[in-house]
Amino acid sequence: MAKITILIHCKDTSGIIASVTNFIHKNHGNIVYIDQHVDRQNTTFFMRCESVFNPKTFHYENFKSVFQELIAEKYEMEWQAYTDDYKPKMAIFVSKYDHCLYDILGRYNAGELNVEIPFIISNHPDLKHIAESFKIPFYHVPVTKNTKEIAEQQQLKLLEEHGIDFIVLARYMQIVSEKLIERYQNKIINIHHSFLPAFVGAKPYHSAYKRGVKIIGATSHYVTEELDAGPIIEQDVARVTHAHSIDDLVMKGRDLEKIVLARGIKLHIDRKTMVFNNKTIIFS
Amino acid sequence: MAKITILIHCKDTSGIIASVTNFIHKNHGNIVYIDQHVDRQNTTFFMRCESVFNPKTFHYENFKSVFQELIAEKYEMEWQAYTDDYKPKMAIFVSKYDHCLYDILGRYNAGELNVEIPFIISNHPDLKHIAESFKIPFYHVPVTKNTKEIAEQQQLKLLEEHGIDFIVLARYMQIVSEKLIERYQNKIINIHHSFLPAFVGAKPYHSAYKRGVKIIGATSHYVTEELDAGPIIEQDVARVTHAHSIDDLVMKGRDLEKIVLARGIKLHIDRKTMVFNNKTIIFS
Amino acid sequence: MAKITILIHCKDTSGIIASVTNFIHKNHGNIVYIDQHVDRQNTTFFMRCESVFNPKTFHYENFKSVFQELIAEKYEMEWQAYTDDYKPKMAIFVSKYDHCLYDILGRYNAGELNVEIPFIISNHPDLKHIAESFKIPFYHVPVTKNTKEIAEQQQLKLLEEHGIDFIVLARYMQIVSEKLIERYQNKIINIHHSFLPAFVGAKPYHSAYKRGVKIIGATSHYVTEELDAGPIIEQDVARVTHAHSIDDLVMKGRDLEKIVLARGIKLHIDRKTMVFNNKTIIFS
Amino acid sequence: MAKITILIHCKDTSGIIASVTNFIHKNHGNIVYIDQHVDRQNTTFFMRCESVFNPKTFHYENFKSVFQELIAEKYEMEWQAYTDDYKPKMAIFVSKYDHCLYDILGRYNAGELNVEIPFIISNHPDLKHIAESFKIPFYHVPVTKNTKEIAEQQQLKLLEEHGIDFIVLARYMQIVSEKLIERYQNKIINIHHSFLPAFVGAKPYHSAYKRGVKIIGATSHYVTEELDAGPIIEQDVARVTHAHSIDDLVMKGRDLEKIVLARGIKLHIDRKTMVFNNKTIIFS
Repeated sequence: MAKITILIHCKDTSGIIASVTNFIHKNHGNIVYIDQHVDRQNTTFFMRCESVFNPKTFHYENFKSVFQELIAEKYEMEWQAYTDDYKPKMAIFVSKYDHCLYDILGRYNAGELNVEIPFIISNHPDLKHIAESFKIPFYHVPVTKNTKEIAEQQQLKLLEEHGIDFIVLARYMQIVSEKLIERYQNKIINIHHSFLPAFVGAKPYHSAYKRGVKIIGATSHYVTEELDAGPIIEQDVARVTHAHSIDDLVMKGRDLEKIVLARGIKLHIDRKTMVFNNKTIIFS
Repeated sequence: MAKITILIHCKDTSGIIASVTNFIHKNHGNIVYIDQHVDRQNTTFFMRCESVFNPKTFHYENFKSVFQELIAEKYEMEWQAYTDDYKPKMAIFVSKYDHCLYDILGRYNAGELNVEIPFIISNHPDLKHIAESFKIPFYHVPVTKNTKEIAEQQQLKLLEEHGIDFIVLARYMQIVSEKLIERYQNKIINIHHSFLPAFVGAKPYHSAYKRGVKIIGATSHYVTEELDAGPIIEQDVARVTHAHSIDDLVMKGRDLEKIVLARGIKLHIDRKTMVFNNKTIIFS
Repeated sequence: MAKITILIHCKDTSGIIASVTNFIHKNHGNIVYIDQHVDRQNTTFFMRCESVFNPKTFHYENFKSVFQELIAEKYEMEWQAYTDDYKPKMAIFVSKYDHCLYDILGRYNAGELNVEIPFIISNHPDLKHIAESFKIPFYHVPVTKNTKEIAEQQQLKLLEEHGIDFIVLARYMQIVSEKLIERYQNKIINIHHSFLPAFVGAKPYHSAYKRGVKIIGATSHYVTEELDAGPIIEQDVARVTHAHSIDDLVMKGRDLEKIVLARGIKLHIDRKTMVFNNKTIIFS
Repeated sequence: MAKITILIHCKDTSGIIASVTNFIHKNHGNIVYIDQHVDRQNTTFFMRCESVFNPKTFHYENFKSVFQELIAEKYEMEWQAYTDDYKPKMAIFVSKYDHCLYDILGRYNAGELNVEIPFIISNHPDLKHIAESFKIPFYHVPVTKNTKEIAEQQQLKLLEEHGIDFIVLARYMQIVSEKLIERYQNKIINIHHSFLPAFVGAKPYHSAYKRGVKIIGATSHYVTEELDAGPIIEQDVARVTHAHSIDDLVMKGRDLEKIVLARGIKLHIDRKTMVFNNKTIIFS
């Protein structure tokens, strides 16, 4: 069976759900999952809908153009459709920390993540052996003050050559260039090692230690131009005490970072995230 | 606006969502929330749908009979509809522990729970003053070996006279009679002070202490004839250590019991629970 | 048996634990609990020690003066001793929100909190009936721009007349005066409705909603002159989603506030908190 | 500096802490951490004490024999001492699941676990490549009905030849032989994929699904002869809903298993666990 996932947002009005579901039904689709959200402050409607069609009679391109004509235009929808056949292509950016990389590749190997990983980019050569042990190409693209532009061009070239759909910054210790952010809007996932908006910026564990918090956290979010201020996908926390040193926080935090990043990636792959007004709608 | 919440379950097949949403749309309703679940093992479909209608043109009874005729019969649905106008009537059963009672009545006072509480029944007189301070009638119905049947009759009489919709056992330390359970199927909510199925029966904190668990829990569930084996609505847990005495567990557990019972009650009031095969579907 | 709890801090050096425990042993005390912490950055030593003495032979004042002479002076300790006989006197400040007040008084009634509550102060008359139902004196001390100083004097007078040991701000919606903070250093416990340092100041649930966080929190802390920047005693969090309105956050937050404040109060009463460098050491 | 960790248990009586700390002080040790617990039901005293000595003047063997003579015999203590110099030797047993193995070896590589891992044993050849990529010897010891005794002998031989201190069953899908359990009492750590005592035995995720729990868990525990009934070291849980299939539970559970096993291993390595009456005391 062909499975289509449609994500919609538009101004809220009466009859949208009925129109969409009716359209799918008339096209011999069976809706297996539907979820929606209305942002009442902005009277905006969001919907995620998974339907199954008979591949023998189903014409995907045809379906999309008729949907655009009959439904999307009527409600002035912004919408995307995704098929299950296509595995999104995910690039991983790393630096020297290996825990998130190991975790992602372990899940990838275990079949948890329905993606292709065409390559890993790093500004340091240190983690090459991990990429190799998982048989994934590794590109060392150093970034220094003087090579920033060249590095950016190298990155963009690799991303485009491989048709990368989205990027994961798995503790990549460089600020991503504006051009990249623009090109991959809501398609770059970062892991920040604090429960944002607390402890924005560098060395959040040091700041957490200094403030004497009893809980530390991690946040996966889409990257926007403002540092650590993009739409939050997922957060989680762990308890700490006065007895924990900064090193202890770093170690405890690693487990949080791994899990919170992995959940963010999985939600993105499963088309369960939408972004509106710098916030996410998470259909899970 | 009149708000109608419909709960449906039936055999899974193609077109149910489209049929229902289309019906609501044609009756000038606006769907504000829709959620569904398919139990694939049992090919059973579940749906919860909130719609808003114009009260000037909307005829509730008429709507229900046409829905039954055109939709429900076609798919052999079991279904209920609820209006927002009607506040369900909740009876509370207690014994001597007051923490859950205080918590429920505090939330009731704060407007968290959209119910009426016609009365509180207890097999002990101890908590009468709490009922009085919240101005809720309190009936002392003692239960001993010899008075079990009389007590049951008293309870049933009170429940029927007041048109009680569902019952909350807020640490009621008596086993509820079969007749009551039959009469209020999936409408009696109990709080058990362990994470079921661990530590079924009496004194779960003692058992938890003896086993040396590092986590204790509480479970709110619908009461069935088999003790502590009914459909689970909500569970939560708290960390404990070797240093906690049984008394410490009891005290820590009180906070869990309050919250887990309150969440269970709220889900039930909001029509967010369905029961199938001794399990709950929780639309939240 | 007389139970003495000693809290110590001093510069870290060799032999402190042996000296203290040996002193207690020679005075026929039995140590039932000892915990310590060394802040390595500041080479500072912290200790909490519970000992039991035979009340027939034990002279508390004598014990303290000899301890001061033989032990405390040698190590230049700052220290306090507390007996179990004495119940600390706790004043509660409230405004209009009742959930924390109900929760505290419920725990007080249940015997969870080993304190006396000589009175409740409020800048509004709204919660008087709760104080009355728990038979605790209630003083309405309005605070307006013009009456700030008079109010402060009234508060201080009440606090001193009743020999209040510490103050709990149970969602008191006024900034406490500097004089009060100075007089009750590390003895005023506030509940802030966010996981500090995120969302300092007014309307944290609104800010949390706006930022689109997936976790909200609450923080109990000692009050210092800088707003919401005092030593954190306890924090906890709850998950939220895009579907939660600000009102939902407020309601979910109430449960957090109650529990986090109650834990903070209990730790303070049990002499399990020490403050150093604007951070707490929590012996639990 | 030489760091010594002493674990003690004995009948509770007055003066133990003073005696021990005084002894360490007189031997020119500086106590950096002390924790104790009294089991009041069994009037048993437990203590964990870390001390630092000047390696130039400190004689470990001498210290131990004098401690035995002067302190341990007086109080009839059972006690162990450990030095920081010695890295315990940990054997890992696996079968086909790789997530716990990857997690342990990743932590080992990152320096989180202060152990040596002389080898990995498996009853299947599947995970050999992982062992190799981390450069750890891998022994395939098949276990069938007929080869059980031979396998046990092979295992014991390997364990003894390498001087293994403790064993980790990282989802090892075989019941360990009595001889092994006897030889490594409280030194075999297993991960069970439920919050024990719920769902003892095989297929706990299937049972959890069937019972409709809202929380799943994992438990690391020392192995005793009774299946899944040994002393619990650590537990943790994760929320699930009606929408999770058994496969979803298995996937969610993997993250729990990794973390709960890792924490159990770390506590054991750091000498923070003691066992008494089939329960653990965890000094953390």
